[in-house]
Amino acid sequence: MLDRLIVLDPGSALTLQGQIRQRIIDNILAGTFARGRRLPSSRALARQLGVGRNTVLHAMNQLIAEGHLVARERSGIYVNEHALAGRVGRGGAIGPRPASGASPLWARKIRTLLAPRAEFRCPPNWQLHPYPFIDGRFDASLFPAAEWREASRLTLGARAIQDWSADRGMADDPQLIEELRTKVLPRRGIEARPEEILVTLGAQQGLSLVTQLLLDATTPIAVEEPGYPLMRELSALRGARVLLQPLDDEGLRVDRALDEARVVYVTPSHQFPTSTTMSMKRRKALLRRAKARDFVIIEDDFECETTYLDRSYPALRSLDRSGRVVYVASLSKVLSPALRLGFVVADPELIAAARELRALQARQPPANNQRAAALFISLGHYDATMRRLARVFAERRTALLDALNHYMRSSLVVAPVRGGTTCWVRGPDHLDVNYLAAQAAQHGILIEPVAHYYAGAEAPHNVFRLGVTSLPAEHIREGVARLAALMRSLSRDAVEHLDGSRGRRLGADNLAQTIAGATLLSRTVYGDPCTVEIRDDGHLVGRAGFHDEDCDEGEWWVEDGLFCRRWRSWCYGEVGRYIPVIDGPQIKWFNSEGRLIDAVAIRLRA
Amino acid sequence: MLDRLIVLDPGSALTLQGQIRQRIIDNILAGTFARGRRLPSSRALARQLGVGRNTVLHAMNQLIAEGHLVARERSGIYVNEHALAGRVGRGGAIGPRPASGASPLWARKIRTLLAPRAEFRCPPNWQLHPYPFIDGRFDASLFPAAEWREASRLTLGARAIQDWSADRGMADDPQLIEELRTKVLPRRGIEARPEEILVTLGAQQGLSLVTQLLLDATTPIAVEEPGYPLMRELSALRGARVLLQPLDDEGLRVDRALDEARVVYVTPSHQFPTSTTMSMKRRKALLRRAKARDFVIIEDDFECETTYLDRSYPALRSLDRSGRVVYVASLSKVLSPALRLGFVVADPELIAAARELRALQARQPPANNQRAAALFISLGHYDATMRRLARVFAERRTALLDALNHYMRSSLVVAPVRGGTTCWVRGPDHLDVNYLAAQAAQHGILIEPVAHYYAGAEAPHNVFRLGVTSLPAEHIREGVARLAALMRSLSRDAVEHLDGSRGRRLGADNLAQTIAGATLLSRTVYGDPCTVEIRDDGHLVGRAGFHDEDCDEGEWWVEDGLFCRRWRSWCYGEVGRYIPVIDGPQIKWFNSEGRLIDAVAIRLRA
Repeated sequence: MLDRLIVLDPGSALTLQGQIRQRIIDNILAGTFARGRRLPSSRALARQLGVGRNTVLHAMNQLIAEGHLVARERSGIYVNEHALAGRVGRGGAIGPRPASGASPLWARKIRTLLAPRAEFRCPPNWQLHPYPFIDGRFDASLFPAAEWREASRLTLGARAIQDWSADRGMADDPQLIEELRTKVLPRRGIEARPEEILVTLGAQQGLSLVTQLLLDATTPIAVEEPGYPLMRELSALRGARVLLQPLDDEGLRVDRALDEARVVYVTPSHQFPTSTTMSMKRRKALLRRAKARDFVIIEDDFECETTYLDRSYPALRSLDRSGRVVYVASLSKVLSPALRLGFVVADPELIAAARELRALQARQPPANNQRAAALFISLGHYDATMRRLARVFAERRTALLDALNHYMRSSLVVAPVRGGTTCWVRGPDHLDVNYLAAQAAQHGILIEPVAHYYAGAEAPHNVFRLGVTSLPAEHIREGVARLAALMRSLSRDAVEHLDGSRGRRLGADNLAQTIAGATLLSRTVYGDPCTVEIRDDGHLVGRAGFHDEDCDEGEWWVEDGLFCRRWRSWCYGEVGRYIPVIDGPQIKWFNSEGRLIDAVAIRLRA
Repeated sequence: MLDRLIVLDPGSALTLQGQIRQRIIDNILAGTFARGRRLPSSRALARQLGVGRNTVLHAMNQLIAEGHLVARERSGIYVNEHALAGRVGRGGAIGPRPASGASPLWARKIRTLLAPRAEFRCPPNWQLHPYPFIDGRFDASLFPAAEWREASRLTLGARAIQDWSADRGMADDPQLIEELRTKVLPRRGIEARPEEILVTLGAQQGLSLVTQLLLDATTPIAVEEPGYPLMRELSALRGARVLLQPLDDEGLRVDRALDEARVVYVTPSHQFPTSTTMSMKRRKALLRRAKARDFVIIEDDFECETTYLDRSYPALRSLDRSGRVVYVASLSKVLSPALRLGFVVADPELIAAARELRALQARQPPANNQRAAALFISLGHYDATMRRLARVFAERRTALLDALNHYMRSSLVVAPVRGGTTCWVRGPDHLDVNYLAAQAAQHGILIEPVAHYYAGAEAPHNVFRLGVTSLPAEHIREGVARLAALMRSLSRDAVEHLDGSRGRRLGADNLAQTIAGATLLSRTVYGDPCTVEIRDDGHLVGRAGFHDEDCDEGEWWVEDGLFCRRWRSWCYGEVGRYIPVIDGPQIKWFNSEGRLIDAVAIRLRA
């Protein structure tokens, strides 16, 4: 019996021994191995599972040492009677759990209403698309895995663990502060004392703490237009009036309109989202005005790490003699935003207040990651990775510019292209970028409309943004070529019929073989992303929504040369029958009359 | 020359190779190894440093691969000309950095004023004290180091890194959600669907998010009195009126006074800070009233993991049929608060709102730690560690009760002792606990006054709290004995003179030898903690304040049989001359007239 309860996965990252441990524990908790039950001998178990007896013995001994199992002399190994001690029964004594509908009207109880998020919601399955022209998403293939592993392992020594696991109160890791101070900040020309630095959960927490401290309903803030939508949201959460300040070729305009603001938020090194770099002259003008009008500047240097252009100006913070610049940055471009490591540099008084607020809202960023980051930087990996990224991104940027120049030359104006890895592409006046983006996604191409970066009335509806931080150079040309072809075809916009349809029609002979193992990428009619796995065993697994809120399973089969599918609840649980045509990265579904029903991106088995 | 710039530390956790890498990079960044400079041959360097040539070669090859150094054929190894590329010059072009005084009056610019923190500020050097009777501080010696290492290592495989380092948007690690759902929450009787769980940075972020969502100036909140000071602060930040609800033997009183509240905050499993467990009857009464009066309950189950008493009641959340309980907990007692792993379980609607707010304020808790925690739990280490902690804490609790019973029997009433590892000790009516705590700290004994847990007028000034979560059982008896003796001696309170002083006077023959390597633990007159290292080489290193804001260095020496010291700036930089007497864990400083000048805790070289 046990061999059915313990199924080992040869492809798992866990050792066989680890897997055996894990499965035995799962079974104890699930109650399938009852408390006090005797387990088969290690010899029998090893034979059943087809592994060495030592592997089983080691796993069991560890489980005994930890109290999950007990060994009784001359009798065998048993599940500990007390294995579940401390657990309490389900609350079912009083009644069943409520259906979600029984909730006490949370909409009325929630007092802080977040404005509907203006942010472009990149679908969570973006990495499965062949041509994700999305800027700022971290490309996991560029993560410095070996270097991070080296640094992380050093945090796992007994002495190191003792050190970081101890309760340090509100203080940050002094080693990380020192590395930031001596190796990272000098890159931006910034000198800082330890008490001027606070470690945060990415730049985002830095912005959140600073806006909470500096803004209220009486303190207007000026932000860039177009600009970072979440900064507008953070300001709105504080009830602050948001002034939209336009940009020009040199960056944020510095003029009278700023004087009303008590705080000015700016992204000088690469303006977000246009990538414009603020000129030196403008930087000085902004600082002069800040001093004259006594406003505070929040400098968001979110791309400080990927300065791969020649023109690299010192941060505003390094030019500021009056201490009124609050510098917010992160290690996310080098070390993945998933690690959430950022920092704020500001006057000690503001840092002290931010530290108190941070203590109240999250204590501090995890100490093990602070230590690992400190070691990563101290070993020189930070500088080395940045140099590598600069090379890679410069290459991708060149590939993007070349491709745009070749394929989109006649029909489009490319504007502005400065710094950054991002291009803004302006289409013909009548172009509806949202429609183009939806169509492109069906061809596996992700592009980003820009309207959500604007809070004012000026949002252009024929402009989209192409980023290449997540797209290898060798795919860029092909992606741009396909996008250009799509744009041309959309101006014709004929309804497609199976006869004369482009692509490879799948029939009884090759349908099952081609389509098994594939993944479909689409959007629901509500605009939610949707991923469907077509499994080898005839199963369908579907996940829709930004958090997989809506999942379903189903079956697929081939019948009379048609692809048939039936979901448990999606599509009313009815059987659908289709003729599939593979056209590049797209699959087109025709009905038996040859009418095109749907077309979505497909990723065939690798 | 190079051998002076590269000093290897045989005691370092880093390999020799790692140290060589680190030092070379330090020197490049500091400019001591100029760009383009030729390094000595690996052979010469190995000889100078006294390490194998391979060690040096490996370090250099890695630095070459990463671009810090370049090898030129038949010429040697050089510092890369471009090693500092991308760095900008110091902002000195415009002027020198401001003195802190030049700041733009932050006090006026900071709009969110945090109330002066009522929290008891445990000194950051508490671990150096021999008898820290402080509850809730994590004892790093109990950290499951081998188990955490195992789980962490599994996150460092190439496939695992690819997985967690990818940008997941706002979602948590589905593996961790699943482990919480199936292994952790059932211990508390809680069933939850994935969309009812949000991972947070410890319980603290959970409380912060929930109070931000549920409270504003129009929503009174009822909290326990005495209770968690930071919860009162979080409520005050939202401008909410805070109603103080008293406790009795069964926990929070459930009566009419609650009806005014829209939200009730409660710590039922071990009331914080009294450790009272809420009775089952009271739990049901609270839930009934919440439903009848339509208020929301925030259930803070901060000690959910260390339920080592027989009486373990299901969480309120598990008893709740109306979906109005918001459950907040953490993995901090098992996995150290330094890792910042907590979670909230609530209605999906509230969780969705909390997720949006979390995205705005910190994105999400770091993905590598989420994955490591998932593996830690799935391998059974969570349950095993909890069982181990339960044993250890039960033993410590018994030791505490025995010692109190023996040493404090006649003079004190011990109240209340229920659940938890904490005892409240009520002294004689005239006892000034703050004075006692200050005196005890000079004897290396840390105790916690309780007044800061009260927001009302009732705070008792003769009660202190003894916790043993950070104190090994074998030190507890001695610590209580010393505390009891101190309390007796304080009722006499005579001024001590060198003649007739208790302890071992240090003279010319043994002074330097005894005192070198010792650490002094004290408080400044402002109440800030202060640590002084008396180094072997005659150096003094002093750090004062909660964040080491105030540091100084100095020298010490022995002259005419007196201990002499001179700080650079502390004590006006004047020389002080003292006769030291060691009395147990205390050192007493007498002046040459034999008058006691100061007495502080000392930790002699181990």
